[in-house]
Amino acid sequence: MPRVTESHRAERRAEILAAAARLFADNGFHATSMAGIIAESGLSAGAVYRYFRSKEELIGAVAEFVMSTADQVFEQLLAEEATPSPGDVTSAMVEGVAGRLIHDPVIGADMTRLAVQIWSEALRNPDVLARVSHVVVRLRGHCAEVARRWQDAGNLPADVAPDQVGAAMLSLVQGYILQRLLLPETDASYYVAGVRALLSGKT
Amino acid sequence: MPRVTESHRAERRAEILAAAARLFADNGFHATSMAGIIAESGLSAGAVYRYFRSKEELIGAVAEFVMSTADQVFEQLLAEEATPSPGDVTSAMVEGVAGRLIHDPVIGADMTRLAVQIWSEALRNPDVLARVSHVVVRLRGHCAEVARRWQDAGNLPADVAPDQVGAAMLSLVQGYILQRLLLPETDASYYVAGVRALLSGKT
Repeated sequence: MPRVTESHRAERRAEILAAAARLFADNGFHATSMAGIIAESGLSAGAVYRYFRSKEELIGAVAEFVMSTADQVFEQLLAEEATPSPGDVTSAMVEGVAGRLIHDPVIGADMTRLAVQIWSEALRNPDVLARVSHVVVRLRGHCAEVARRWQDAGNLPADVAPDQVGAAMLSLVQGYILQRLLLPETDASYYVAGVRALLSGKT
Repeated sequence: MPRVTESHRAERRAEILAAAARLFADNGFHATSMAGIIAESGLSAGAVYRYFRSKEELIGAVAEFVMSTADQVFEQLLAEEATPSPGDVTSAMVEGVAGRLIHDPVIGADMTRLAVQIWSEALRNPDVLARVSHVVVRLRGHCAEVARRWQDAGNLPADVAPDQVGAAMLSLVQGYILQRLLLPETDASYYVAGVRALLSGKT
């Protein structure tokens, strides 16, 4: 019954990921060991190591999770409306973060707390840096595609590369993640209204 | 000779801060001990503890350093020109980060690497969170003052609080710090041109 096996595998994998995410989020990457993750998951060491051989592999899985969430958001945005504005896209990304990454039903941990810890870990672990920069490049590429279409429609100056505008758009999401964690009163709709006002102001 | 003593004290303090900053930047906050900082500084344990009683106090000093750098940037901006645009202010902040925090001559370490580690540490250490959120509030307040003046001049929609726009402006700097560290090709002038294009585009 390969289908049962496949779904069983996916469930196990999600359980381990959830256990790791909870520990990383509470104690940080450094203070979390594979032994701790095994205990938290309630599975055997052999079972856990079958899915993830190291903490770095778990981080890779978290990175993929964030990436696939973002991919879905952009797939919708770029399909439903050919040229969404940067303000609409930033708003959708912030709402995606608030709605899916902060309270993910499968992982059951605030993935944005993990994101901050992974950024920090990337600065001294080249394996983690490679996995993280890959995600940042991809997210910035999505934003750049939005900027390219917006520029083609005559709504952005012609003398910048779309990637430059994409970098600024991505910052608006990264800053939301940080400020919400460091100043918990930073609510998504409050923040998005500020972004829209900034983008619609005179320059 | 109180003046000599004062300058001697300031020098010692900077030496210890520099030693701590180098270790935090290279090995992270968790993997750095007070004993390691004492060894790196070349001073006695008694001398070091006279200035800083804990790693948290050192982080507080780093936070103050970042804050005073930002305070100087804003003092100039708000004095020289009564109503600088959010684009000009973001540009000045990014250049301030690139020019002063990345290559500070006194500290001799990339303070932005420390910033990321401090953000991460703040998520699991309430003492660090209190020190960091204080800095974020102050920086966002500076940005909000810029937004307030820009709004009073009729250049921003009247229906948002200046703090909302300030939050978005601060994000543009935080995102620059992150993207530069995770994708080292993110150059300050390249980035600033993208921000200006985004702010000047149609919405």
